Amino acid sequence: MEMMKCVIKEKAGAGNLKLTTRPIPEIGDCDILVKVLAAAVCGTDVHIQDWNEWAAKRLTPPSIIGHEFAGEVVKTGKNVKNVKIGDIVSAETHIVCHTCDLCRNGYEHVCYNTSTIGVARDGCFAEYISIPAENAFVCDPKIPIEVLSMMEPLGAAVHAVMEFPVAAKTVAVVGCGPIGTMAVAVAKQVGAAKVIAVEPNEKRAALAVELGADVVVNPIAVDPVEKIKELTGGLGVDVVLEFSGNIYGIKAAIQYLKPEGKLAALGLPSKPIDFDLAEFVYRGLTLKGIAGRLMYQTWEQMKGLLAGGLDVSKVVTHILPLEEYEEGLRLMKAGECSKVILKPF
Amino acid sequence: MEMMKCVIKEKAGAGNLKLTTRPIPEIGDCDILVKVLAAAVCGTDVHIQDWNEWAAKRLTPPSIIGHEFAGEVVKTGKNVKNVKIGDIVSAETHIVCHTCDLCRNGYEHVCYNTSTIGVARDGCFAEYISIPAENAFVCDPKIPIEVLSMMEPLGAAVHAVMEFPVAAKTVAVVGCGPIGTMAVAVAKQVGAAKVIAVEPNEKRAALAVELGADVVVNPIAVDPVEKIKELTGGLGVDVVLEFSGNIYGIKAAIQYLKPEGKLAALGLPSKPIDFDLAEFVYRGLTLKGIAGRLMYQTWEQMKGLLAGGLDVSKVVTHILPLEEYEEGLRLMKAGECSKVILKPF
Amino acid sequence: MEMMKCVIKEKAGAGNLKLTTRPIPEIGDCDILVKVLAAAVCGTDVHIQDWNEWAAKRLTPPSIIGHEFAGEVVKTGKNVKNVKIGDIVSAETHIVCHTCDLCRNGYEHVCYNTSTIGVARDGCFAEYISIPAENAFVCDPKIPIEVLSMMEPLGAAVHAVMEFPVAAKTVAVVGCGPIGTMAVAVAKQVGAAKVIAVEPNEKRAALAVELGADVVVNPIAVDPVEKIKELTGGLGVDVVLEFSGNIYGIKAAIQYLKPEGKLAALGLPSKPIDFDLAEFVYRGLTLKGIAGRLMYQTWEQMKGLLAGGLDVSKVVTHILPLEEYEEGLRLMKAGECSKVILKPF
Amino acid sequence: MEMMKCVIKEKAGAGNLKLTTRPIPEIGDCDILVKVLAAAVCGTDVHIQDWNEWAAKRLTPPSIIGHEFAGEVVKTGKNVKNVKIGDIVSAETHIVCHTCDLCRNGYEHVCYNTSTIGVARDGCFAEYISIPAENAFVCDPKIPIEVLSMMEPLGAAVHAVMEFPVAAKTVAVVGCGPIGTMAVAVAKQVGAAKVIAVEPNEKRAALAVELGADVVVNPIAVDPVEKIKELTGGLGVDVVLEFSGNIYGIKAAIQYLKPEGKLAALGLPSKPIDFDLAEFVYRGLTLKGIAGRLMYQTWEQMKGLLAGGLDVSKVVTHILPLEEYEEGLRLMKAGECSKVILKPF
Repeated sequence: MEMMKCVIKEKAGAGNLKLTTRPIPEIGDCDILVKVLAAAVCGTDVHIQDWNEWAAKRLTPPSIIGHEFAGEVVKTGKNVKNVKIGDIVSAETHIVCHTCDLCRNGYEHVCYNTSTIGVARDGCFAEYISIPAENAFVCDPKIPIEVLSMMEPLGAAVHAVMEFPVAAKTVAVVGCGPIGTMAVAVAKQVGAAKVIAVEPNEKRAALAVELGADVVVNPIAVDPVEKIKELTGGLGVDVVLEFSGNIYGIKAAIQYLKPEGKLAALGLPSKPIDFDLAEFVYRGLTLKGIAGRLMYQTWEQMKGLLAGGLDVSKVVTHILPLEEYEEGLRLMKAGECSKVILKPF
Repeated sequence: MEMMKCVIKEKAGAGNLKLTTRPIPEIGDCDILVKVLAAAVCGTDVHIQDWNEWAAKRLTPPSIIGHEFAGEVVKTGKNVKNVKIGDIVSAETHIVCHTCDLCRNGYEHVCYNTSTIGVARDGCFAEYISIPAENAFVCDPKIPIEVLSMMEPLGAAVHAVMEFPVAAKTVAVVGCGPIGTMAVAVAKQVGAAKVIAVEPNEKRAALAVELGADVVVNPIAVDPVEKIKELTGGLGVDVVLEFSGNIYGIKAAIQYLKPEGKLAALGLPSKPIDFDLAEFVYRGLTLKGIAGRLMYQTWEQMKGLLAGGLDVSKVVTHILPLEEYEEGLRLMKAGECSKVILKPF
Repeated sequence: MEMMKCVIKEKAGAGNLKLTTRPIPEIGDCDILVKVLAAAVCGTDVHIQDWNEWAAKRLTPPSIIGHEFAGEVVKTGKNVKNVKIGDIVSAETHIVCHTCDLCRNGYEHVCYNTSTIGVARDGCFAEYISIPAENAFVCDPKIPIEVLSMMEPLGAAVHAVMEFPVAAKTVAVVGCGPIGTMAVAVAKQVGAAKVIAVEPNEKRAALAVELGADVVVNPIAVDPVEKIKELTGGLGVDVVLEFSGNIYGIKAAIQYLKPEGKLAALGLPSKPIDFDLAEFVYRGLTLKGIAGRLMYQTWEQMKGLLAGGLDVSKVVTHILPLEEYEEGLRLMKAGECSKVILKPF
Repeated sequence: MEMMKCVIKEKAGAGNLKLTTRPIPEIGDCDILVKVLAAAVCGTDVHIQDWNEWAAKRLTPPSIIGHEFAGEVVKTGKNVKNVKIGDIVSAETHIVCHTCDLCRNGYEHVCYNTSTIGVARDGCFAEYISIPAENAFVCDPKIPIEVLSMMEPLGAAVHAVMEFPVAAKTVAVVGCGPIGTMAVAVAKQVGAAKVIAVEPNEKRAALAVELGADVVVNPIAVDPVEKIKELTGGLGVDVVLEFSGNIYGIKAAIQYLKPEGKLAALGLPSKPIDFDLAEFVYRGLTLKGIAGRLMYQTWEQMKGLLAGGLDVSKVVTHILPLEEYEEGLRLMKAGECSKVILKPF
């Protein structure tokens, strides 16, 4: 039985992460074994480290954490036809049933029976991972492996951007963490007339500009409603993409949306927001929560956008060996990075 | 100068309505003069009577109130081609500019330069009214004039129902005032699998059943979330049409919506609601405010639905002469009616 | 090894169908065994009998034919969770891969790797059939089994009707074989303002009226363009649902469509049609080919429509024992029936 | 009465164009007078010169021709609010009624009562033109006036590109005259993964590459079906934008479209095409005719795309004084140009 190094959540409670070794996983007839070449650190991993309520409900330690990755296929189950040994793949983290009421309606991304990689089953902070072949997405090997390891969060950005038409529209991107910053690039790639990034952190704001933001608004330095109205000839924006989860940011966004404006929300506020629903009714506004990635239309869109020249490589600010996962998590918590990549090899 | 009787808001402040006479209005080249055969009382008329904040901002007394009506065309301006003398017409209450940013984007119903009949200009609680010919909608004269006088609120119901696909879907209609009750009928007409009406008022609940509701839930007698889950095999509903403006009702609706469920909201809550936005994100929910009627797709839809057999005549519970407008308003405030129709002739 | 009776295509060439016995099929871990309670005869079965070019390319005799059915689950593979023994099920005939470019884009119904029940693998003109559990659709057992055996063609009708909005619209249904006739009922169920059936066969025309057609046009007795313009105030129809495959019928349909009208086509013409594409350009027309059923949105829609009261039971005109399959095929060829159901038990 | 120079169609029949003088037009209360700074020559102007069947049906000589232009507002009617003197404007050529069945359904661009500038009423090959203020579109004066004079054909390109989602998709643009070439640029601007231009004329092919085509296929030199399959990994394209009107080109396009592929057609074939409708049915294809520009969503999209950096200036290959209109028409007929601009001043 060959062994591999990996990072596990050893037991419930804050902390309790540990670098250890485990047997290289077996695979079933419909699975593949992937040699992990790059894994990206996500806010969810921080939640698992901190053992917040969300994590405590979903994880059963001990288990290997991590869910954003890319790697090389090294073994395939006997029924597998869509990938072959040697392929460079990334993966959708939601394993779904295809037969529940939601899957049957084309909503696989919120399947009632979802099992999530790195949460409900072993993840990718490891040298190897076994996943269902269906969840693998064959990538263009010419794209840097660090970028490919971010396909899952890029997919969240793409899902949000593509929810409403943004071509020729004025778009505000609120919150420029890694997903928001990638959303800026995606919105420009698909023809947004103007992308206004709303972000107080100067480094993140600068990165948003590097990825294509036409202008950045610092919502602490200026009143974002006033400023964005000014930047849009008094009209406001057509679309808001919300990644901050910040209550003031969200309430401001409702103010600077045009009538019939659209708000795609992915950021998770820590507590309820007091919405004035009358604003939605009088002005015909739309709010749409963005859950995961459409399976697999969003993945196909990513493939097409990358083929068309989308470049999000600057979002990778740190590359560390897997052994330094604690430093990766620290950078995330401190907000000193955009995306941190871990390399098992 | 021929005179006509009419109801005016005489001056600012609560009350101050008065039956009086005014000259029959002149019409411009693009206008028509309509002999009002039936006018319907709306909650907005009650607000104007009570002189709430909304009304105080929009109305400049003295002016004739009332905006829901149907009647016969008795005069047409020289440029008018779309209606002719003798036509039975109803009318869209929003007069729009066709050239602002919103109109140009197909959002005429929230035009920046809207002028509203019975609010910003003289209304229909009168024997005659002058309106732009463009706003007139020629009706099938075989439909009872009382029903035709409700085309504007019926349009609000149709707009809400048609916002999201409801054919073959499970739909909750929350709040069965006149618009909600008509929405029940419309949802059934377009093939909803099951319409669950949520309404505590027994008379209104009974009327909802008469218009096609498959079941009524009394949200005071039972927990609506539990009950609706039970009625839907534990799944919840695909679509909520919200007409109540009730905060508890809206919060419950978010709970019994399926993942990727859709909520079209028309009811106006009296104060902000504390939404848990995370519910929207995790479950991919959509909230859409419904403003007015699409101009004029909603009107065309009404025409088609009525031609296809839609019958909302039972929503008319009272018919009074115009002179008894005070009684009509009283019935509305007391919730003792569904729709009250006033007849000037 | 238990045996069952079944109908096979014994070898290539016209005819060559035979009632015989075969072992009851084995099932895999993800499959179910269904006891066939009713099977419906399809035009495709006639093509297989006649061994036309389409059939010769797709079928490898000997194999059991038939693909429209409903029955009772009598055995389930060890991985099966979505159905259980005793469930009454119908089935989607397309078995798809979930991983090709088309499946990944949400187009499973045209999957590059489709295997079709009753064509590429053993079918349902038999006492038992093994199918992947994913393809099974659990049905309401209160619905007559004959109706449930038509879920697959009903799905084709539903797919066509739902392709474009028909609520409140004027719709022409061209060709009232079983699918067209069911489309009439579906279009009315989802709120079409007026359904005009175009059908020369008097029995079929009468059946279309029974299922809800507002009027029938006999395109041999009258000029359908002239007649339909007359029936629609000179405007034409919003939507055409084409099931005839008749070249004259299709060309006429293009004429009586309104500008920006929509044509959903399912009928297969025997040879190319000379379209005037300029008609499409000047008038902004849309033509959409309808292939199979959306997997599985169309099935969910069927469930909802049946729950909402859709009744297509009158389309069943003949019920025969399986042994009389030749008579069923004869009735189809002679056009003396609408839908013929075969019963193995 | 001040006079202006202009180009008129003097009488029916081929030729019969003439440079002459006419009084500067009067304007109505809702009109504006525009000083024409640049006018573009369209294929339609060639048809008017040649007096083909289309032109003979629509034009009543003598009248000023030309319909693509941009200029400065020099006078406004008393009811005009959306433009002011000094504004640089372009104009929609379709003047519509807002009240017919088509306008009421949001299809103003195919209004039953359309009057077309430069066809049914005096056009822009003149120093001044009077148009309804509603049809004027205020432009960014920083954009070259020659580009602004092409807003109407650019709008046709934008309408075609925006008909179906092209972001992240593989798109073939068939026929690279001015509109097709602009469509290449628009498709890239809104994020197409790959744009394949299909064009035999070498100059036009080269221009398509300058505007962003990833690759050009010469359909005379190679089999376009084979070549495009090869360029797309055997899959074909997601979307075809057809501007050639070439029968072989259109038939090839149907072959290299993916299942569920979309074809937006604007080119006008000179005679009927023999389509194999079965290809549409089996493969779920869509064909959509593109008529004019959505009024006015397409104009808003153009504004946003230009603001976002869309540059189509290279499509202007010739600039001539108005007096040399004959040379402009000759260049068009000879295919020696892309877009020819005439300048009255």
